[in-house]
Amino acid sequence: MLSFSTIVALAALQTPNMNASITSTNLPKSAVDGIATTLTNLEKAWNTQDIDFYGKQLDEQCNWVNVVGMRWRGKQNVVKAHAVYFEIMFKGVPQAFQTVEIRGFTDTVAVAICTLKMAAYKTPDGRSMPANLNRMTLTMVLKGDRWLIGSAQNAIVDPVAMPFNPIADDKDGE
Amino acid sequence: MLSFSTIVALAALQTPNMNASITSTNLPKSAVDGIATTLTNLEKAWNTQDIDFYGKQLDEQCNWVNVVGMRWRGKQNVVKAHAVYFEIMFKGVPQAFQTVEIRGFTDTVAVAICTLKMAAYKTPDGRSMPANLNRMTLTMVLKGDRWLIGSAQNAIVDPVAMPFNPIADDKDGE
Repeated sequence: MLSFSTIVALAALQTPNMNASITSTNLPKSAVDGIATTLTNLEKAWNTQDIDFYGKQLDEQCNWVNVVGMRWRGKQNVVKAHAVYFEIMFKGVPQAFQTVEIRGFTDTVAVAICTLKMAAYKTPDGRSMPANLNRMTLTMVLKGDRWLIGSAQNAIVDPVAMPFNPIADDKDGE
Repeated sequence: MLSFSTIVALAALQTPNMNASITSTNLPKSAVDGIATTLTNLEKAWNTQDIDFYGKQLDEQCNWVNVVGMRWRGKQNVVKAHAVYFEIMFKGVPQAFQTVEIRGFTDTVAVAICTLKMAAYKTPDGRSMPANLNRMTLTMVLKGDRWLIGSAQNAIVDPVAMPFNPIADDKDGE
């Protein structure tokens, strides 16, 4: 028979919520929960390579700047680019949100700064990327009853550079 | 005597406005002009290494994620980090905004996606960075009569990766 603690652990593994610390200094719980739901969906869509579900987390006018500075204008292009990269670069490459720090700008716009763990992958130009931390700035917009990604930019946290951060609270990206 | 065309060219060089294409599909001219003023100031502050003037373009709660994924929380830390890097990395390293594409989210919040030319520099960990394009997502917030930078993330456009962009309108970052 499973022990109580095993059952609790299994339940945690099966929860639809991501295992990240999600905080906001100035938003009500309802907004934080709404943003958390969208980011949980985003993580799940990535890890199951479900491009349709990924797209459902994006606003129609969503723009995206990726880790190598490519700019994708509008949801259709953002989805197309992710679909290609799910196929040729990120197949079976999991990501896991670690921390999400949210600041509300208005009742309908907030910025979430996220830190994610990414597994190793190989880029289309043949370079091997080791497992890394990824940092992402998401401008979130409330449309109807859902918080959607209105604009995104992300970056690979460079472990060689981090010790030179002039700000002492972030010397390793964790 | 200077020809008329020479005088016009000299005047253009001396204009306080940056020489960038600034566009928005959904904001009124007054908002675009306000954001353009702030970004003109930002470019000027960078190129004159005027850290106080740089800080005046930032909202008090401004967060920044830089090209190597460092996260700086709040204007005080963003200014401190830039002050250090002005001194040890970016002294005499000019930047020039090329394009700014702005989307308004509300009357008081907009996202500006900027492409800048950066001159070559050497990083604190000893790597030589050639001249490059930089891409920057700025969430701008209207405070009183000024548009300030509320959140920023930027990246170096990687010329090796760009030809592999699945979206055809941005194969070189220009």
